Amino acid sequence: MKRVEAEKLFSELVDRTRQQTPVPFIERDAERVLAAVQTAADFWEVVRLSHVSMRFLCDFCNQLINGDFAAASDGKLSLTDKGKELVTALEIAPVKEGLCKACEGRGIDISKFYGSLSERFSEICKDRPEAIQDYDQGYVTEATSLACVSFAWQRGDIEDKEIIILGDDDLKSIAAALTGAPKRVLALDIDRRLIDFINEVAEREGLKNLKAVWHDLREPLRDEWLRSFDTFMCDPPESIVGLKAFVERGIMCLKGRGSAGYFGLTHVEASLNKWARVQKFLLEKGAVITDLRDDFSSYVNWNYMKEMRSWSWLPTKALPKHLWYCSALYRLELLKDVDVENPCLAENIFDDEEVATN
Amino acid sequence: MKRVEAEKLFSELVDRTRQQTPVPFIERDAERVLAAVQTAADFWEVVRLSHVSMRFLCDFCNQLINGDFAAASDGKLSLTDKGKELVTALEIAPVKEGLCKACEGRGIDISKFYGSLSERFSEICKDRPEAIQDYDQGYVTEATSLACVSFAWQRGDIEDKEIIILGDDDLKSIAAALTGAPKRVLALDIDRRLIDFINEVAEREGLKNLKAVWHDLREPLRDEWLRSFDTFMCDPPESIVGLKAFVERGIMCLKGRGSAGYFGLTHVEASLNKWARVQKFLLEKGAVITDLRDDFSSYVNWNYMKEMRSWSWLPTKALPKHLWYCSALYRLELLKDVDVENPCLAENIFDDEEVATN
Repeated sequence: MKRVEAEKLFSELVDRTRQQTPVPFIERDAERVLAAVQTAADFWEVVRLSHVSMRFLCDFCNQLINGDFAAASDGKLSLTDKGKELVTALEIAPVKEGLCKACEGRGIDISKFYGSLSERFSEICKDRPEAIQDYDQGYVTEATSLACVSFAWQRGDIEDKEIIILGDDDLKSIAAALTGAPKRVLALDIDRRLIDFINEVAEREGLKNLKAVWHDLREPLRDEWLRSFDTFMCDPPESIVGLKAFVERGIMCLKGRGSAGYFGLTHVEASLNKWARVQKFLLEKGAVITDLRDDFSSYVNWNYMKEMRSWSWLPTKALPKHLWYCSALYRLELLKDVDVENPCLAENIFDDEEVATN
Repeated sequence: MKRVEAEKLFSELVDRTRQQTPVPFIERDAERVLAAVQTAADFWEVVRLSHVSMRFLCDFCNQLINGDFAAASDGKLSLTDKGKELVTALEIAPVKEGLCKACEGRGIDISKFYGSLSERFSEICKDRPEAIQDYDQGYVTEATSLACVSFAWQRGDIEDKEIIILGDDDLKSIAAALTGAPKRVLALDIDRRLIDFINEVAEREGLKNLKAVWHDLREPLRDEWLRSFDTFMCDPPESIVGLKAFVERGIMCLKGRGSAGYFGLTHVEASLNKWARVQKFLLEKGAVITDLRDDFSSYVNWNYMKEMRSWSWLPTKALPKHLWYCSALYRLELLKDVDVENPCLAENIFDDEEVATN
């Protein structure tokens, strides 16, 4: 296949996808899919490696299949001969991944922060409540929670600090309190199972500075939480409204200039366009991004895969066998004090066209 | 010491520093210094661990010494009993560092990208030109150059791509070309020693796609370089004017939407205030930040330490024995095509009050 012909075919694929898909994407996203599909056969691995939104990925893959560039069955996706000719002519190389095995690419040595405490955390997690769809849940691996706290500790945001976790199915409040380093850890969640679990663990393990309180984050925060913490952590819903609302709630809880916040953001449910909007929002709020570590967090597969909206988009339907849903860890630091607005939010802050998992 | 008293003393220290220092800082920066000085005695290690600007650090340390909170001699800085009481009362914990040893905290396994080629790169680097102050030079460790190319490869920015390196005392052009993966690598530099060195290596090693061309980046770029590359890499001067100018030159060289750029930014010469300004600038240019990995790059100590302007600021003068000058790696990706302005820049784009090493 000649380059000119390949470019024409590629351009048609992109145009057809653009007519169909309701989410923003750029040509490079299509290249990323064609790079990932050369490296992995398993569809969920293609999702992970491509770093594009699930909605776009599925729509683009369907175009690839319709045009006989790819074939899909039993959860596998592969290029046809025509598809291989296309990527060769376009000079799109396979994804090459080379994460450090020792730290799973996070750059942090958990053992330096936790020692044998990581086993205690594992032990505690055995009885954790399962993730449920009602609250848009899906928790990260234990290593992720420990690495996140370790990373924050390294940044000076844990030891002797007051920490609030807005939504805590990851049990990061326990991971933080277990170290004995924070002055205070408060977890808010809408799920009473989690509140009870965290408070029971605090009681049983003698973690006096750990407390969980029931709260629906769509409701205004209590006054006692405003401007009261050094550090917040949250894993917001990925609709742009939900993202901004949760991160803003986090910022409201901070004491002010020099306080820090952590949150996760995926590619699965957030285009780079959305990433840019979030970044602008942070800067407008007087925050600077000090760290942005993609693929820091890996999520344990949840039980409601077939009920999530993206299931119907899949070009081939099979449950994932490995971790596939990852997110980037953002750290922000406030450069100025923040005006607190503390509004009540609309009931459904969880949806936009890019959202895939609820 | 009571908390109230400690806060008053801290506040006075900060006020006095603010009267003296010409660079922006926040209270948290002062805390970071007090955290670092508890972990390390060596002054250069305090610089590295504190993540604050050198200018502020030196001014604040001088206030600490004047107020009998710290003492310095022979390149060592330590808290006095009064200083220890202060940090205890303020509950400022020591910096706790826990980088993964296997990857030096970068998260990348170089061997997966380079195999035995990394030894070849080392061999080549033995004859490299020394860093000189005339051109604001100071190159990164070999592991940094290899990790940077590996990381970019993982992001799809190396294989089959056209790459431009704006200023290449790091020899990243050689590190990239050596893999055989890029379609083309062009290095620009103002230092004829580097141009000759890179072209000689290209000739000797048979790297047909590698070329170095002399260019003063204050001068407009040649038309043939505009909108012609998939990836740029640069290590800009850290004055805000120089930073923007170099990154903008890099962006001008990119083909457009979906193209990517890499650059380094330190804390030593750039306050978080400057970081925020750079981030706003990137977003205004239609770029999104996809990765921000602090301390990714470590610089080999250069020979003109005593001639750099910050030497006179030091509270205690001794040459560094270990790596201390680090920078964060930024990756940006363009979300829209970019208008090319290609101006000539003023002769001195290297200075502002935060600049420390020229």
